[in-house]
Amino acid sequence: MNGAESLVNTLVGQGVDICFANPGTSEMHFLAALGNNERMRSVLCLFEGVCTGAADGWYRMKDTPASTLLHLGPGLANGLANIHNAKRASSGMVNIVGEHSASHLKYDPPLTSDIEGLARPLSHWVRRADAADTIAWDTANAVAHASEHPGKIATLILPGDTSWQQAGSAVLPVRARAARKTPSFARVEHVARVLRSGEPTLIILANKATRGVALERAGRIAAATGARLGSQFFTARIERGAGRTPIERIPYAVPQAMAFLEAFRHIVTVETAEPVAFFAYPDKPSLLKAEGTLVHPLVEADEDSALAFEMLLEALGATGTAPRRQERIETPAPSGALNPLSIAHALAAALPENAILVDESLTTGRESMGHTMGALPHDLINNMGGSIGYATPVATGAALACPDRRVFCMVGDGSAMYTIQSLWTQAREQLDVTTIIFANNSYAILKAEYANMGAGSPGARALSMIDIDQPCIDWQAMARSMGVPSVAVDTAEDFHKAMVDSTRERGPKLIVVRL
Amino acid sequence: MNGAESLVNTLVGQGVDICFANPGTSEMHFLAALGNNERMRSVLCLFEGVCTGAADGWYRMKDTPASTLLHLGPGLANGLANIHNAKRASSGMVNIVGEHSASHLKYDPPLTSDIEGLARPLSHWVRRADAADTIAWDTANAVAHASEHPGKIATLILPGDTSWQQAGSAVLPVRARAARKTPSFARVEHVARVLRSGEPTLIILANKATRGVALERAGRIAAATGARLGSQFFTARIERGAGRTPIERIPYAVPQAMAFLEAFRHIVTVETAEPVAFFAYPDKPSLLKAEGTLVHPLVEADEDSALAFEMLLEALGATGTAPRRQERIETPAPSGALNPLSIAHALAAALPENAILVDESLTTGRESMGHTMGALPHDLINNMGGSIGYATPVATGAALACPDRRVFCMVGDGSAMYTIQSLWTQAREQLDVTTIIFANNSYAILKAEYANMGAGSPGARALSMIDIDQPCIDWQAMARSMGVPSVAVDTAEDFHKAMVDSTRERGPKLIVVRL
Repeated sequence: MNGAESLVNTLVGQGVDICFANPGTSEMHFLAALGNNERMRSVLCLFEGVCTGAADGWYRMKDTPASTLLHLGPGLANGLANIHNAKRASSGMVNIVGEHSASHLKYDPPLTSDIEGLARPLSHWVRRADAADTIAWDTANAVAHASEHPGKIATLILPGDTSWQQAGSAVLPVRARAARKTPSFARVEHVARVLRSGEPTLIILANKATRGVALERAGRIAAATGARLGSQFFTARIERGAGRTPIERIPYAVPQAMAFLEAFRHIVTVETAEPVAFFAYPDKPSLLKAEGTLVHPLVEADEDSALAFEMLLEALGATGTAPRRQERIETPAPSGALNPLSIAHALAAALPENAILVDESLTTGRESMGHTMGALPHDLINNMGGSIGYATPVATGAALACPDRRVFCMVGDGSAMYTIQSLWTQAREQLDVTTIIFANNSYAILKAEYANMGAGSPGARALSMIDIDQPCIDWQAMARSMGVPSVAVDTAEDFHKAMVDSTRERGPKLIVVRL
Repeated sequence: MNGAESLVNTLVGQGVDICFANPGTSEMHFLAALGNNERMRSVLCLFEGVCTGAADGWYRMKDTPASTLLHLGPGLANGLANIHNAKRASSGMVNIVGEHSASHLKYDPPLTSDIEGLARPLSHWVRRADAADTIAWDTANAVAHASEHPGKIATLILPGDTSWQQAGSAVLPVRARAARKTPSFARVEHVARVLRSGEPTLIILANKATRGVALERAGRIAAATGARLGSQFFTARIERGAGRTPIERIPYAVPQAMAFLEAFRHIVTVETAEPVAFFAYPDKPSLLKAEGTLVHPLVEADEDSALAFEMLLEALGATGTAPRRQERIETPAPSGALNPLSIAHALAAALPENAILVDESLTTGRESMGHTMGALPHDLINNMGGSIGYATPVATGAALACPDRRVFCMVGDGSAMYTIQSLWTQAREQLDVTTIIFANNSYAILKAEYANMGAGSPGARALSMIDIDQPCIDWQAMARSMGVPSVAVDTAEDFHKAMVDSTRERGPKLIVVRL
C-alpha cells in the first residue's frame, strides 16, 4: 500500500466516501488510489470552484464532510472562493491539495507556491503530509476536524513522494466525533426570564437550529411565549414549507432590516450573532437593531441548539406546547408577466414535496421567497459567504447527496457565469438539478447598490461595467454546450410549466427566465 | 476628489490606463471614478481569473502593468491562479482589491476574509490603503513596484471608507522607474573564456532576453562562437520566425530534455536558472543537465541582458559579427488528417506577419512548435506558471495591448474550460483573437503522465477522471453562447483555411479542431 492508497482508505474508513476532483500530474497516484477503491465515489469537475462548492452542497444536506482533490497552489486558489462560502456556512470539508515532492521543491519549479500560505486564511486546519507512514494519521485528523460542530475546513497537502512511497500497515485511529457543547444553564434561565416578560422578542435561528427537532422546539417556544422566530437573510439550510415551523427572514437592505427589527425590545441569538449589514454604506449603520434593543446570546456556534431549546421549554414549563406550524397555502399557477411576485407564485405552485432549493437569485429572488412559505415542505439553501458562483456547484453536491430529491437552483446570470462548468458535471452524473437562470443581462443588484453607496446614478461608462448585455449570453446554447437540455420562458405560466416539466424525467434541465 | 478618484487619477498619471474589472458593492465609488476618467479604459470580465490573466497578457506585450479590480477576498482568490502564472512570467500587475470599511470589519460580515493573507503568497507587495489622503502615495508605490524589472505583483487593498472619503489635493510623486541592474563584469569575462574554449555551450535565454536588441546580440554571440541558443520549454515571450535569431526549445519531457542537454559541456543562464523538470517523478531526476555539465550564470533576473550581451560581444571582440538569423521557410498548406505535424504546418502556413501566438495547447502543441520556426515573424507567449486556464485571458489582454495585430490562442479543451468567460470579453470588445480549441475530449496529457509517474496504466475508473467525453463539450454552442462566431474542422486543409479566414475580418473567432 502506498501513501495515496493509505490516504484514500483512511478517508473511506472515516466515512468520507466522495471526492470532487480535478487532478493533475502530481496527483496520479492519488487518482489511481481513488480508482482502485470501490467504496470511494470520484466526481470529476472541470474547475476547482465546482469541486469545493459541490463539497459544500454535500455537507449542507448530509452534515458530513466530502473531500476534494485540487492540483497544487493554483488548484487550491481556484477553489478558495467557494471554500470561503463553505466556511461561512459552517460546512465541513477535507481538501487534498497535491504538491511537489520535497526533493523537487527546492528547485522552485514553475508550479511552486506557498500552499500553506494560500490555505491558511480560509482553512481551520492545515497540514503537510510529510511521510507515507503517517498519512493515515494525518488524514484521520483532517476528517476529525472537518467533522466538528460547527463544520471545519481541513486542508491536507499531499507531496508526490508521500503519495508514491510505501506506507506501513496503518492502524487507523477512531474518529473523534466532536460532541456539541452543552449550552449555558444561566443563559437559558436568563432567556426564560426575557420571554416571560412578554416584551417583544425575536429569536434568531441559524445553522443547525433551523431544521429538525431544534426547529420544532423553537416552534414550541414561540407558541408558548409569543416570541417571533427569525433568521438572518442568509442561512445554511432551512427546513420550511407546509407543516414546518415558519421563520421570518430579516430583510437584506439596511433600511428594511432596521424597520423589521425596530419592533423588538429583545433579540435572542442561536448559533449566530446579532444582525449586521452585509456591506458598509457611507450613511448607514453596521448594526441593524434599534437603539435600546437588548441582545441575549442563547446558543453559541459550537453548542447544541436542540438541547438548549429543551432546557428552555422546561424552564418555561412549556414542554407540552404544540409547535407553531406553517399552514399549507395552495398557490394557483400564475400567468402573465414575470415579476418577483409571479415568479414566487410559480415557484410555490411548482415545487414538488421534498425539493431542495438553492438560491442565488440576488436581484430577482430577494423579494420572492416570502411568498413560498406555504409551499410543500422543502429545504432552502443560501449563500453564507457572499462570493458569487456558489449556487450551481452547491446544487451539484446537494443532488449527489440526495439522489431521490430534485434540486432547484435559482441563480442570476452574473453569478451563473462564475462556475458555469457545474453544468457539465450535472450532465456527466445525470443529476436531478433544475437550474433556473434569471437573465436580466445585468449585475442588476449593483445598480441599486450604486445609489445606496452614495455614488449617485451611474453614467454611461460606469453603467457599461454593470450591464452584461453586450453581448447577451445565449443560455440555451451554453446549456447545450455542456449537454444539459434547456427551455426559455417569457411568462409566468411558461415558467411554472417548465419547472413542472423538469421534474418529469431524471437528469439536469435548465430554464432561462428572460427578464 | 474622493479616495477612489485619487486612486484612479494616480493610476492614469503613472501610466496605468487600463483596468480589467469585476466590481461589487464595495467598489461602487471606484467604478464611478473609472467611469469619470476618460483616460482610463475599463474592461469588464465575467470572472476574476479573466481579469488577472488579461493583465498578464497586457504586460507581456507592453512591458507596463495593467490594473485589475477585484471584489474583496474571494474576488482576489478567483484571480490568484492567473496571478501565479503572471508572477512566474515576471509580469507586472497592479491589483486593486475592494474591502469593507474599517468600521464595518469588526462585525465580521459575511464577505470578510484575511485579504492580506490571501494576497501575500502570490504578491511581491501588499498594502492596505488606510486613508483617502494618502492613497495617491500608496497607488504610486504600487505602480512603481509593479514596474520594476522583472515585473512585480502589487496588490493594493481599498477599504470602502477610503474610497468615499475626501482626499486632499494630492501631489503625485514621480514614479521611480527601476533601472535594470548592470551585469557583473567578472561573469562576462568568465563566460567569454567559456565561449572561447570552443567546448559545446548552450546559452539559455529567458524573459526580456528572448526579444529585441538582446536577442539580436545573442544571435551575434552565437554566430561568433558557435554556441547554441536555447530557451526553457516555457518562456514569457519570444520573438521568432523568419529574420529573427532562432532559439532552440528544451523539451518538456524529462528523458527528451536530458537527451537534448547531454550534448553540452557548459550551460550559460540569462535571466533564468538551470533547467528543472516541471514535475518530480519517482524514478527521474529534478535537474536535467548531464553529469559534468557546468552551469555559468551570466545575467540574473533583475539585470540587463542587452547590456550583458554588449559587454560579452566586446570581450569576445565580436561586435561586428552579423547575428544568426532564421531563414524563411515557405510551408505549403497541408491536407489530410490532423496530427501534430499537419497542425504545425497549417499554423506555419497561416500565421500572418506580426501575429501573436498564445500557446496552451499542451498535449497537441507540444511537438508542433518546432515546425513553425520559419513562419512569418511573430511573437510566441507561453504559460510560465503551469496553472491551466491562462491562454484565453492572456490572449484577451494581448489583443487589447496590440489592437493592430491578430492573436492566435491555441488551447486544449481541458484548459479552455477553466476561464472560458474570456470569450465574452473578446466579443464585448470585438477583439481580433482567433481561439483554437484542440478538442480531444480528454486531459490527454495526464494519460502519459499517469504512466510516467509509475502509477501503471489507468483502469476504467481512473480513466473516467481523465476523459472529458461524457458529455463531449459542444464548443460551437459554447462560442455562440458568448457571441463568438465559430467553425469546426476535421482536416488539416480545413484547419488552415479556417485560420486564414479568421483574419479576413475584425473581431473574435473560434475554431474547434476535432481530434
